[in-house]
Amino acid sequence: MARPRFVALTTDFGLTDVYAGILRGVIRTLSPEAEVLDVSHAVAPGDLHEAAFFLLSAVPFLPKGTIHLCVVDPGVGTARRVIAVRAGGHTLVAPDNGVLAPVVEALGGLQEARYVTNERLMRPRRGMTFQGRDVMAPVCAHLCRGIDFALVGDAATAIEPLPGFAPAVGPDRCVGRVLHVDRFGNVVTNFVPGDLTGARDDWRVVVGDHAVARWADTYGAVAPGELLAYPGSVGFIEIAVREGHAADRLGARRGAAVTAMRRDD
Amino acid sequence: MARPRFVALTTDFGLTDVYAGILRGVIRTLSPEAEVLDVSHAVAPGDLHEAAFFLLSAVPFLPKGTIHLCVVDPGVGTARRVIAVRAGGHTLVAPDNGVLAPVVEALGGLQEARYVTNERLMRPRRGMTFQGRDVMAPVCAHLCRGIDFALVGDAATAIEPLPGFAPAVGPDRCVGRVLHVDRFGNVVTNFVPGDLTGARDDWRVVVGDHAVARWADTYGAVAPGELLAYPGSVGFIEIAVREGHAADRLGARRGAAVTAMRRDD
Amino acid sequence: MARPRFVALTTDFGLTDVYAGILRGVIRTLSPEAEVLDVSHAVAPGDLHEAAFFLLSAVPFLPKGTIHLCVVDPGVGTARRVIAVRAGGHTLVAPDNGVLAPVVEALGGLQEARYVTNERLMRPRRGMTFQGRDVMAPVCAHLCRGIDFALVGDAATAIEPLPGFAPAVGPDRCVGRVLHVDRFGNVVTNFVPGDLTGARDDWRVVVGDHAVARWADTYGAVAPGELLAYPGSVGFIEIAVREGHAADRLGARRGAAVTAMRRDD
Repeated sequence: MARPRFVALTTDFGLTDVYAGILRGVIRTLSPEAEVLDVSHAVAPGDLHEAAFFLLSAVPFLPKGTIHLCVVDPGVGTARRVIAVRAGGHTLVAPDNGVLAPVVEALGGLQEARYVTNERLMRPRRGMTFQGRDVMAPVCAHLCRGIDFALVGDAATAIEPLPGFAPAVGPDRCVGRVLHVDRFGNVVTNFVPGDLTGARDDWRVVVGDHAVARWADTYGAVAPGELLAYPGSVGFIEIAVREGHAADRLGARRGAAVTAMRRDD
Repeated sequence: MARPRFVALTTDFGLTDVYAGILRGVIRTLSPEAEVLDVSHAVAPGDLHEAAFFLLSAVPFLPKGTIHLCVVDPGVGTARRVIAVRAGGHTLVAPDNGVLAPVVEALGGLQEARYVTNERLMRPRRGMTFQGRDVMAPVCAHLCRGIDFALVGDAATAIEPLPGFAPAVGPDRCVGRVLHVDRFGNVVTNFVPGDLTGARDDWRVVVGDHAVARWADTYGAVAPGELLAYPGSVGFIEIAVREGHAADRLGARRGAAVTAMRRDD
Repeated sequence: MARPRFVALTTDFGLTDVYAGILRGVIRTLSPEAEVLDVSHAVAPGDLHEAAFFLLSAVPFLPKGTIHLCVVDPGVGTARRVIAVRAGGHTLVAPDNGVLAPVVEALGGLQEARYVTNERLMRPRRGMTFQGRDVMAPVCAHLCRGIDFALVGDAATAIEPLPGFAPAVGPDRCVGRVLHVDRFGNVVTNFVPGDLTGARDDWRVVVGDHAVARWADTYGAVAPGELLAYPGSVGFIEIAVREGHAADRLGARRGAAVTAMRRDD
């Protein structure tokens, strides 16, 4: 196998700080040939569901062999472990807090996993609060340089699951949540089309006080200002308003409840 | 000609989503040697005028041979076509919605244009709502790898114009608009110095209730807190307040009307 | 010495403009082999203290030999000079306004400095308001290509200091300020642990109406919702709330006064 060349970053560091720049510097210092590719630094602070959605959205579109670093870590400074995982030709490094579970499943399941415990791969003088810089980025840089995966640390047999990421699915009613609201106001639910059995036109999607019953495959199929439900570009059902802002219209925010109900007429 | 190496991105995707990261991934997957250069992802959603201004500002400063991908697409999901254009040593790919017209003119005019119709250059399984990922980024990656431009698709003889981008120019009065407000509060108009005939000191620039009559070439020429009009770094006339925020002072927002009037004294 | 390969950008350009993209283009046009690494573009407009903090945070984690471009320039368009500095294996280019002083000291002091005066290294047609594009980025690109440092311009024997960056330190009382509030609401002070003599538990940190007396090394050591003071990842003392937003709790903003007081019990 060719040596991997890319380290891809998905974090909740935002873009008002210098943290992402430091990760880039640490990686390029240890692995000058690595190419750092920013997936996103805009995960809401500590939101594992949104981070998992971002990984699901992006990882399949990155080159095989990429090392993915995901720093979304509500438990920083506590006892949770850091894990490195191989799945579907990709390598992923993250806190073992469930954030990797959905993308690993989408990539065909866990091939190999190890806890990041080898201190020789970490920065020698480590602070307690920036493990992205001191532990995870160095390990990714070493993996990008081609070290044996087994050097990372102790073998793990499973990764933490991510409770609540998948909806509760029933024959007439599915209960889920808003994973993400995008810049255009489109509302990404955690339903996939297969969750809604039978004809999609038999279902309506309820967010707050609104029931969306119009289904289409593209915005152009509806009139300007009209709400529509459609299969989004990542595979989840989304709600949009043509030439409008669905989240504002629906009063829907990240994390809000969404219900799909079969029409009883 | 040496193979082009850069793909430059100008989009309205913002930085709170994963869309730009996905474009980077698609490009690097298909063209591992391509270097992706972010021009900006901060175009206001669907604002073709601001996008055209960004391209005018940046394209001349990027290496010749660069492939520019511009995804600003108020008509996504409708029948508008995607076009690839060659001008002034640059190649540009965008929806054919007028966004390329000003920069192509600034680069010396259209050399060659083709509609992006060759499905073999696109992603095999395409969604309906993310043509940046499924159509435009793949074509740019293939162009960056050096395929023959003619493979892109059917020849086009013209590109769509961009109505309203240029001001209405008269001998004593020019009527235009605010193209952009920058982070520092500087107000970029769509006037170029040549629009205002004769001595610039004979003109004042009116925004809302304010008339700016003070002209200078740099902030340091006026007192702190003073408004000034000056030729901006891209070539358009801008309005600033030294050590202040001109847009707030003037109540001027993107798209607002601006009038230049010759003084009648 | 190997030719430097990286140009690292730290600016107050924000991410709603095209200015950072233009810097990338100018650098890659003049030095195609340069790798541009974004440290941050989120310095508050003209805030030299925050910019100095960002440089202190990031520069030590970037590869030796990097050319650092720092464009934070409240005096743009006035008579202040541009300076290039060598320190600790790094080269830094910035307006000579004090922004480089703290990081140069941290890197072991000034090795060599020159004012950027050689017009042959600048863009031939220069505007008055975008020296990042027309002066500083071209010089960095040439330095990245390996030109002799002495070609930059006239030798300088010192750089401007940065008043107010260090706190006023006394045996029982230190008076400082908030350098930065990060995305998670953590408050970065300008105290380093050595400023507070003796046992840190003898000190409390006062921000507005709040006195923080709890010290720890990591968030996990305190209960959710509890305030703590701790040595931050860069070396400055920070204040956080576990699973909360310290800046909101304290009403502390960038630039606010912070006092450390020895407990008199």
